[in-house]
Amino acid sequence: MGKIIRINMKAKSASLEEIKMEYKLLGGRALTSRIIYDEVPADCDPLGEKNKLVIAPGLLGGTAVSSASRISVGCKSPLTNGIKESNSGGLVATYLAREGIKAIIIEGQPEDDKMYVIEIEKEKVNIIPADESLKNAGTYETTERLIKKYGKDAAIMCIGPAGENKMRAASIIVTDHNGELKFCARGGTGAVMGSKGVKAIVVKNSRGSITYFDREGFLNVARRVNKELMADPKTGDAYKKYGTAQIVNAVNAIGALPTKNFRFGAFEHASNLSGEKLYERVQERKGEGKTGVPCMPGCVIQCGNIYPDKEGNKIVSNLQYETIALVGSNLGFEDLDSVAKLNKEINDLGLDTIEMGCVLGVAIDAGLAKFGDEESCLALLNEIRKNSILGRVLGNGVEITGKVLGAKRIPEAKGQGIPGYDPRALKGNGVLYATSPMGADHTAGNAFGSRNEVNPLGREKQGDLSRNLQIRMTTLDSLGFCIFARGPLFKDTSTLTDMIYYLTGEKLTIDQVWEIGINTLKIEREFNIKAGVSPYRDKLNEFFYSEALPPTGATFDVPENEVEKAII
Amino acid sequence: MGKIIRINMKAKSASLEEIKMEYKLLGGRALTSRIIYDEVPADCDPLGEKNKLVIAPGLLGGTAVSSASRISVGCKSPLTNGIKESNSGGLVATYLAREGIKAIIIEGQPEDDKMYVIEIEKEKVNIIPADESLKNAGTYETTERLIKKYGKDAAIMCIGPAGENKMRAASIIVTDHNGELKFCARGGTGAVMGSKGVKAIVVKNSRGSITYFDREGFLNVARRVNKELMADPKTGDAYKKYGTAQIVNAVNAIGALPTKNFRFGAFEHASNLSGEKLYERVQERKGEGKTGVPCMPGCVIQCGNIYPDKEGNKIVSNLQYETIALVGSNLGFEDLDSVAKLNKEINDLGLDTIEMGCVLGVAIDAGLAKFGDEESCLALLNEIRKNSILGRVLGNGVEITGKVLGAKRIPEAKGQGIPGYDPRALKGNGVLYATSPMGADHTAGNAFGSRNEVNPLGREKQGDLSRNLQIRMTTLDSLGFCIFARGPLFKDTSTLTDMIYYLTGEKLTIDQVWEIGINTLKIEREFNIKAGVSPYRDKLNEFFYSEALPPTGATFDVPENEVEKAII
Repeated sequence: MGKIIRINMKAKSASLEEIKMEYKLLGGRALTSRIIYDEVPADCDPLGEKNKLVIAPGLLGGTAVSSASRISVGCKSPLTNGIKESNSGGLVATYLAREGIKAIIIEGQPEDDKMYVIEIEKEKVNIIPADESLKNAGTYETTERLIKKYGKDAAIMCIGPAGENKMRAASIIVTDHNGELKFCARGGTGAVMGSKGVKAIVVKNSRGSITYFDREGFLNVARRVNKELMADPKTGDAYKKYGTAQIVNAVNAIGALPTKNFRFGAFEHASNLSGEKLYERVQERKGEGKTGVPCMPGCVIQCGNIYPDKEGNKIVSNLQYETIALVGSNLGFEDLDSVAKLNKEINDLGLDTIEMGCVLGVAIDAGLAKFGDEESCLALLNEIRKNSILGRVLGNGVEITGKVLGAKRIPEAKGQGIPGYDPRALKGNGVLYATSPMGADHTAGNAFGSRNEVNPLGREKQGDLSRNLQIRMTTLDSLGFCIFARGPLFKDTSTLTDMIYYLTGEKLTIDQVWEIGINTLKIEREFNIKAGVSPYRDKLNEFFYSEALPPTGATFDVPENEVEKAII
Repeated sequence: MGKIIRINMKAKSASLEEIKMEYKLLGGRALTSRIIYDEVPADCDPLGEKNKLVIAPGLLGGTAVSSASRISVGCKSPLTNGIKESNSGGLVATYLAREGIKAIIIEGQPEDDKMYVIEIEKEKVNIIPADESLKNAGTYETTERLIKKYGKDAAIMCIGPAGENKMRAASIIVTDHNGELKFCARGGTGAVMGSKGVKAIVVKNSRGSITYFDREGFLNVARRVNKELMADPKTGDAYKKYGTAQIVNAVNAIGALPTKNFRFGAFEHASNLSGEKLYERVQERKGEGKTGVPCMPGCVIQCGNIYPDKEGNKIVSNLQYETIALVGSNLGFEDLDSVAKLNKEINDLGLDTIEMGCVLGVAIDAGLAKFGDEESCLALLNEIRKNSILGRVLGNGVEITGKVLGAKRIPEAKGQGIPGYDPRALKGNGVLYATSPMGADHTAGNAFGSRNEVNPLGREKQGDLSRNLQIRMTTLDSLGFCIFARGPLFKDTSTLTDMIYYLTGEKLTIDQVWEIGINTLKIEREFNIKAGVSPYRDKLNEFFYSEALPPTGATFDVPENEVEKAII
């Protein structure tokens, strides 16, 4: 039925637990949120000893179906003060799932304020002091050193200087099979890992395997899903060539592309930042450049890329839409090379590119850097590396940055920076940012894919749309699926019920599957309310309501009773 | 019945309104909170155009009774995000009350981001650009220049550099008849005034007079109250000699004196910081030094002082208990001279000494300055004057400072710094800080005076005690009374009902008088809830619950159901 590894960083001890019956069908976000709900006092200091960091593969993690091996990380967020789940690709979910490990719970704090590395092999846990060379090491150096020590097929989760210094925009890094970095980016999970004194977790490849209730049955469905994913024109071709950046032009076209600190919804140089341009660059420059790179074992979507410089040397992997929007157009950069360079630096610091794009936009407005100027933006990021006062302000996210710098316009909801869809021109996302227990988070129910069904600028139908999307996405987050796999899964939902049955032997109706999402959203909201994240804060920052966004001239004007429909 | 002056800083216009019937018996805090409740959207940005700054004398302001002419300033607080009322002595309440002006409401924001001076003479309002010489001028220079221009009997309210730069710990300064500075200190009202583009308000002495319903009747009661105040050993003698600092030794004795960033509740050098020592210094040093100075016209308590340096030259007026506790023992200073110097600097910047004592304590813990070291503390304050990034962090209060500096211990409740009574050793104040709509505010119902009735260290009776004190203090804040006048007023409450009757012709029962406080607390709480200040945040910072305070070893351990009793 699965086990939980519980690690206490005060005692430097670990124990193994059989999973509770009621957790049996939970995985990913459903399980991290449930454990946080059950075990973490809602009113605790997110960076204090009472918070916990929970790591869980999705229910279908490690199985033969494509795109289901995302790893969820959960905790009380130091950025939003509410519950947080953030997930990413990489190797670790597969390894844990294949050993029957449903979750790792990290609790307590070392009394010596030192950093540690947690080694996990099968069910064995070893906690060792982090090597001196890892102290404040960037995420690239950290993962390289650890891969050198533990071998290329070790799955690594780690934090960078931002996490070690407990900055609220810090992310947790997860390595893939090529040693490339993936990010549980949002909500400051890296700061919580840092507050637990954990520099890295190394999960060795113990070559476990999934125990299916009916292996053949599962493989049949999985093969069908994988085939449909490959056949789907969106996932099958566009993602492989253009990656997530395929939507740059489309978001720009509806006027929702964050541009120059959310002052515009369209950018005259958007096509230079597009997926098509990215693909062209990779084709032209050759060398290490590549598109069609999977982020987790067995994924057929393969939206990843390696972005090369003019000489063909890798700048960064993986250059994605959200980074391009927030660090690109939002900071006035006209060329992907600049975005890639900043992306690499933000990655190395172990920060969230969305949050940092918002932060730098506000800092530019305050005169600390210039739009489209690499040097001044990199100088600000270097302050974070130095852990200077300015660096600590910036690294603590856009709300604190905005307050300290006296900004009137702070692109945030519930203290978290706004992703790459301006809520004024894609109002379904405005509803999402305002009502999601995760704060402003595009992965919690992105309405962009529904723009042909519900008018992105309309005041109506946005609540129901968002509610529906939030339930579905929370469910996918719990099964371990990537959002991009949703096409075939939602087209024929029997794929979901069948896979759960063939894996676990549990026959659920599709409504019972959505209940996983609904129940998760319910307890997340309840946790938030008890944490003091008031329902009266189901709002966006004030300027989104009053400042018209060119070129559409839209404000966020969805009526409150429509917004409320999205609340579970 | 009274008038309201409404000033719009966007249009630079003013209008005069008859006061609404339902505001008739409201004054001070009751009126500022009611107007905020009625007119300010609870979810607005406190530093944005929708917030309002309301200035109101108490119901009995300007009358012949002692100690009733405090001026209340209300707004949505940028520090707590909830409703705020802060009051002080000085001339302005008397002048306004004697012209029948119940409140000034300042709304809107100038579009040019410039600073203005508002001149008020009787009902006439003139809004003029602030002289270039006032730009970022300290509060001492500002008031001197304005007194020079408008004459010594003009009542001035102004802000310093902190308010102009919209720092959340900024206070509003009010002058007294000697041109000395009094402070509406708490909650960042100065930042709201700054956000309205108002550097100063000058109310000229138009020599109005109070219209009594029954003048003789009122004078009889007032004379009785004044006489009793003078006869009371506490108010009559101790305050005149030792000022508010008379309680230093007593707070130290119960182990509640904030010491070295709230790490201790007693300070070995407390007697050097005591009211007795202050009096001794004034006696010894002579020159400008003085005790027994009133802060508003006609006050017989006269708790103010002028603290002189060794040469007898004034360092600061008025050196008070809260400043001595927070800037003195809490920062490890062993001598009143140091406290006075820092006090003067904080005053000049236009900041709250309580908040800044908390801020500096946290900054010292983070290694930015040293306990008991004037130079390093003054250097930090100078960063605020420079409006540097570090200065902006510090000037934005203890919560932001603590978060940016990565402090585990942040002495705050609802985002506001803890005053000079550690909530662990004076648990009634812990209940107050947790439940008051004002956040951590000692003036909202200080339990120190009740230490002989309710054990300060006990877990019981604290809820009812605080509830009762909060109702009474809110009522006094609404009548315009100083807390120190409470002795005779509470001993014979017919003084209150009689004075209200003789002033207004309204016969209220004493319960109806307390209803003024109760209703005010109710609407304040309702406003806070709608502002997103969740009831689940009726708590103190985590460390007060877990860290034992020497020498008593107390933690804040009042049960939640006891704390809740204090909520109106």
